Amino acid sequence: MSQDPKVLSGVFCASLTPVNEDLSANHSALAGHCKWLLDNGCDGLGVLGTTGEANSFSLSERLEILDTLAENGVGGDKMLPGVGCCAIPDTVELTKKALELGAPGVLMLPPFFYKGVSDDGLFDAYSEIIERVGDSNLRVYLYHIPPQSQTPLSVDLVGRLINAFPKTVVGLKDSSGDFNNMKTLVDSFPGFAVFSGGDQFLRPIMQAGGAGCITAVCNIAPHMLREIYDNWKSDEAEALQDRMTALRDLIVSFKQFPALRTVVADNTGDANWLRPRPPLRAIPEDKQAELLKALEDINFTLPKAA
Amino acid sequence: MSQDPKVLSGVFCASLTPVNEDLSANHSALAGHCKWLLDNGCDGLGVLGTTGEANSFSLSERLEILDTLAENGVGGDKMLPGVGCCAIPDTVELTKKALELGAPGVLMLPPFFYKGVSDDGLFDAYSEIIERVGDSNLRVYLYHIPPQSQTPLSVDLVGRLINAFPKTVVGLKDSSGDFNNMKTLVDSFPGFAVFSGGDQFLRPIMQAGGAGCITAVCNIAPHMLREIYDNWKSDEAEALQDRMTALRDLIVSFKQFPALRTVVADNTGDANWLRPRPPLRAIPEDKQAELLKALEDINFTLPKAA
Repeated sequence: MSQDPKVLSGVFCASLTPVNEDLSANHSALAGHCKWLLDNGCDGLGVLGTTGEANSFSLSERLEILDTLAENGVGGDKMLPGVGCCAIPDTVELTKKALELGAPGVLMLPPFFYKGVSDDGLFDAYSEIIERVGDSNLRVYLYHIPPQSQTPLSVDLVGRLINAFPKTVVGLKDSSGDFNNMKTLVDSFPGFAVFSGGDQFLRPIMQAGGAGCITAVCNIAPHMLREIYDNWKSDEAEALQDRMTALRDLIVSFKQFPALRTVVADNTGDANWLRPRPPLRAIPEDKQAELLKALEDINFTLPKAA
Repeated sequence: MSQDPKVLSGVFCASLTPVNEDLSANHSALAGHCKWLLDNGCDGLGVLGTTGEANSFSLSERLEILDTLAENGVGGDKMLPGVGCCAIPDTVELTKKALELGAPGVLMLPPFFYKGVSDDGLFDAYSEIIERVGDSNLRVYLYHIPPQSQTPLSVDLVGRLINAFPKTVVGLKDSSGDFNNMKTLVDSFPGFAVFSGGDQFLRPIMQAGGAGCITAVCNIAPHMLREIYDNWKSDEAEALQDRMTALRDLIVSFKQFPALRTVVADNTGDANWLRPRPPLRAIPEDKQAELLKALEDINFTLPKAA
């Protein structure tokens, strides 16, 4: 884990984005959810990431979501926004907005339309973005999520980017699901902040010297992840992580994002939460009921929404 | 092949997009190339597709490229622009622009960030786009390119979209490389215009009842594809296609897009053509020379650029 106080660590939520019936962002529901997350254990908010359906929103919508969130009282200092797009100018504009709002970092997907691109090409893309942003306050957290991007960031590429931009490229979120890759990154790059993208790996990555987690199930269990993070060296840590992993596995068995939407809708009493943007879908009503019942059966409770 | 005169057929080029040293679009070089393509055999231009690096340009850049191309004398009636983005509002805006310019059709990728999405989710996305555009002049050509999008359009989904929007969803570009899939589409949906996305399949798809091709190697060989299209029933057709396929295989062996850029740069004398946007890359100079030599060896010539 990094000793640099400007490098992030802790529990971050890959927040869901609620939408209205016309599929526009529901700004007040998002702000309410973000405040609840911060009040219940999160150090910060990975807004507009994969779970937040960032790429299903246009650039202007994404800029508006960030601006409005800040206006609604969620400080930019708590944001770790997803900014990586296929087009370099879009990534640059989102990154500048994040910096303007005071975000301590950005989570940056590589351009992801072309598959099988070279490490040299990905290096070119990240370099071009960092140079265009041209801000010494910029802290980039690379985003390695091969199951969705189909554009993996190799350990070699990560090393080249750290060497080229040592004050800027300071961390990575690993959503590969491959713990060995996370461990290799931690071991290879001392001081580089490696976050797990999976809720099942918070304790293991802390034991390995990682920085924390930026995860989806955090949308319903910030308190549980907080407890693991604060006590990962303690005797109860294994049991706490096992309970979190069981919850995560249950959620994933119902399809992760719509299952999380179901639980948030239930906790807030706001059915708008159920609705994603196409091409994602809600789970059928009978499945929603089955999920809520299954959560009751394992005695899962979450702090009530305001 | 369709009997409806409003449904396209023929030879379309998936045009490259030239960029300046600062990576901005080079509008005059693009217009010059498009005119050369139309003068030398193309029926129309698949501008801003995969070959044209559409998704590496921001929405505002894409809108500007289409507008400026029209201002520079390339009629909207010759355009079949790529419009499919990850975000529905972007796809809608690009589609409206294409219609405003008089484009007879648009080529529409599905949203491609999330992998493993359901046919229902893709159906939702296409439906939402078509309804938001809400224009009876709209003609959608679906874009099936699993190697890049990693989001295939199943035959069943295509059938559902045709049934739901029979006057709008009128064709498909198949860049799967799987000729059986093209043939299945032609056989399953009479009147539906199936274009090959691969230069090696023009004659086969015409024999199968398809509509033509929208391809990358067309950037350097519109004359050859024209000859195949006009003579696909003739005795020479097999030899013409074999020659085209050999050219295509040679180009692909050097990496398709940068190889095509190399040939266009050589033919126009404008080295700007060599440059793609990251994450794509030019091929090394020695490889460029090797490619041009290999083309000489097979006696490949192309009509001189103006």
